[in-house]
Amino acid sequence: MEVLQILHMNQGNGETSYAQNSTVQGKMLSTAKSIIDEAIQKMLCLTIAPNGSMGIADLGCSSGPNTLLLISEIIDAIHATSSSSSSSIEFRVFLNDLISNDFNTLFMSLPAFYNQLKEEKGAGFGSVFISAVPGSFYGRLFPAKSLHFVHSSSSLHWLSQVPPGLDCQATGRAFNRGKMYISKTSPQCVLDAYSLQFHKDFLLFLKSRAEEIVGGGRMVLSLLGRSSADPSTQESCYVQWELLAHALMRMVSEGLIEEERVDSFNAPFYAPSEEELKLVLQNEGSFTMDRLEAFEIDWDGGAEITAVVSGQRMAKTIRAVTESMIESHFGKDIMDDLFRQYAELFADYLSKSKTKFINLVFSVIRKD
Amino acid sequence: MEVLQILHMNQGNGETSYAQNSTVQGKMLSTAKSIIDEAIQKMLCLTIAPNGSMGIADLGCSSGPNTLLLISEIIDAIHATSSSSSSSIEFRVFLNDLISNDFNTLFMSLPAFYNQLKEEKGAGFGSVFISAVPGSFYGRLFPAKSLHFVHSSSSLHWLSQVPPGLDCQATGRAFNRGKMYISKTSPQCVLDAYSLQFHKDFLLFLKSRAEEIVGGGRMVLSLLGRSSADPSTQESCYVQWELLAHALMRMVSEGLIEEERVDSFNAPFYAPSEEELKLVLQNEGSFTMDRLEAFEIDWDGGAEITAVVSGQRMAKTIRAVTESMIESHFGKDIMDDLFRQYAELFADYLSKSKTKFINLVFSVIRKD
Repeated sequence: MEVLQILHMNQGNGETSYAQNSTVQGKMLSTAKSIIDEAIQKMLCLTIAPNGSMGIADLGCSSGPNTLLLISEIIDAIHATSSSSSSSIEFRVFLNDLISNDFNTLFMSLPAFYNQLKEEKGAGFGSVFISAVPGSFYGRLFPAKSLHFVHSSSSLHWLSQVPPGLDCQATGRAFNRGKMYISKTSPQCVLDAYSLQFHKDFLLFLKSRAEEIVGGGRMVLSLLGRSSADPSTQESCYVQWELLAHALMRMVSEGLIEEERVDSFNAPFYAPSEEELKLVLQNEGSFTMDRLEAFEIDWDGGAEITAVVSGQRMAKTIRAVTESMIESHFGKDIMDDLFRQYAELFADYLSKSKTKFINLVFSVIRKD
Repeated sequence: MEVLQILHMNQGNGETSYAQNSTVQGKMLSTAKSIIDEAIQKMLCLTIAPNGSMGIADLGCSSGPNTLLLISEIIDAIHATSSSSSSSIEFRVFLNDLISNDFNTLFMSLPAFYNQLKEEKGAGFGSVFISAVPGSFYGRLFPAKSLHFVHSSSSLHWLSQVPPGLDCQATGRAFNRGKMYISKTSPQCVLDAYSLQFHKDFLLFLKSRAEEIVGGGRMVLSLLGRSSADPSTQESCYVQWELLAHALMRMVSEGLIEEERVDSFNAPFYAPSEEELKLVLQNEGSFTMDRLEAFEIDWDGGAEITAVVSGQRMAKTIRAVTESMIESHFGKDIMDDLFRQYAELFADYLSKSKTKFINLVFSVIRKD
């Protein structure tokens, strides 16, 4: 459980905040838009009665411009599909993230959101009730059969914990640097431990949602994944962790961090393949897969910017997401230094190679 | 609306935080306990089906030790009343306060709360789903007919805004100091403006809750009030505001605040009489009064402490609640100074006089 209390996006609206550094996540969200729209269209005619109430949850909502944008898009899609009946629908919107998420900052943007909704949709539009549900989505969060549409983006690649069993072979620096994350040098037991943890976590996620979603209700989920069966493929964000390990080892060589600290750090991160997703879905049994797409997204944020700027931008993006976790292990003092080194390494990497990551987006239906 | 975005209890867990300075509010809560228990007992047999779902809302929940204590007490009361059927009840708990409330700090105490619940009630106890609903309770917050029990403590004496129409007579310092709050020197038009604002606000509160609460559902509400019909009675927290005005005028005489700033400051606070409450309840028409009690509570926190300690404690209590509002008008720099002066004045006052305040607690039923 410990990792769930530590892991959170950087708070507030400052320079290193998630709110200011979540363009990549916004991009991932926009790739999923057409799939979200389709899922809502297919669902609406089946499950929502006129004058009905509709439960919508965003799991791992974070706290930034993407959060309420997504809710806007979902409401727009419903409005477009059923403009005649949506005027009387009560939308119950649940924003979920870990208890350490910066809900305070998120809530401050609600008055503007409600005002915009009223302006765009008119006063006759149905009521929208937004609430926050803090807690881990690896477990129950909502009353039984209370949800019609569930969304989660950029969250399910975070495991509930660092997998146990990583010390399955002789230790040593080379090995340890290979087990901090899944890399080309990871021994099979490390690959297995990560894969098993993902399987367990995602199964628990599906079991929990199966209780909460009405028959015919839908989920659109997206997460970092890979198109290859090989878990150490470059697509699975291997570069992100590899460069972080390099930056940390640079600081070890400068005497700023003890080598043992790096050896004992492991990331609770796993990018699954399409086959793994399908397997868990089948094992759980309550949902049918309606659509599954893999989108390639550039790490570098477009050709128009230099490798240096791109490196800095990526360092900020990664920092906003991982700093709480890294800081709790290595301490606050080295953070600026670490991410400066990381930006340099990333810029250097991007000047030589191109790399993409894979965003897996899939739409599932709760069986009746 | 502006005042609703400014007014919040002091955040976090530090020395001036509400969490550390809410003993008085805890006392007010405990006076209401037997009335809460009774309301729940009477309600349960009528409205909750076995295996049912029960909606509970705490309006103006704040962020401190009292918040989850109240939820505990409500769940205890339900558990005691119906231990056989509560094992299958789903409790939907909604914590409401203004968007500027420190929900982040509140959420951090949830894991301990859930663990305690599991320990005390056993794993077989029904599920509890806690969510936060940020927004003003002077308007709709929840879907139609979704609540069974609503509680609000120490919140309804805060108006939605400073009443308009306070400039109804010739201005001047003596007058202005009298209109900052309701005092013995307030002209009739000021009394009327405050009374009318309370009437409007409480009416809107009742209308909104009438939509949200099921027939037979209940509310237990408590707020600062007065037993006399005279709105300038000392009971109605007149001392609290009188001493604050003194402290501010001391700082004017020391050249630390401009007199015009004091003249233009007004508190959105009103302590109603029992008759006023009954009148609004009757005008709105959806609720019947089941019980109404007035509790006298000492300002000084008990005889065992000195006036100086008591003055400091009261200054901290008032600071934790009013600082955000006072700071937004007078600026951050003078806060420490102001509340030091305030503590002195309060100690001086308590060494000469005794004063009590009145906590009105009432229980109402939603008509079928």
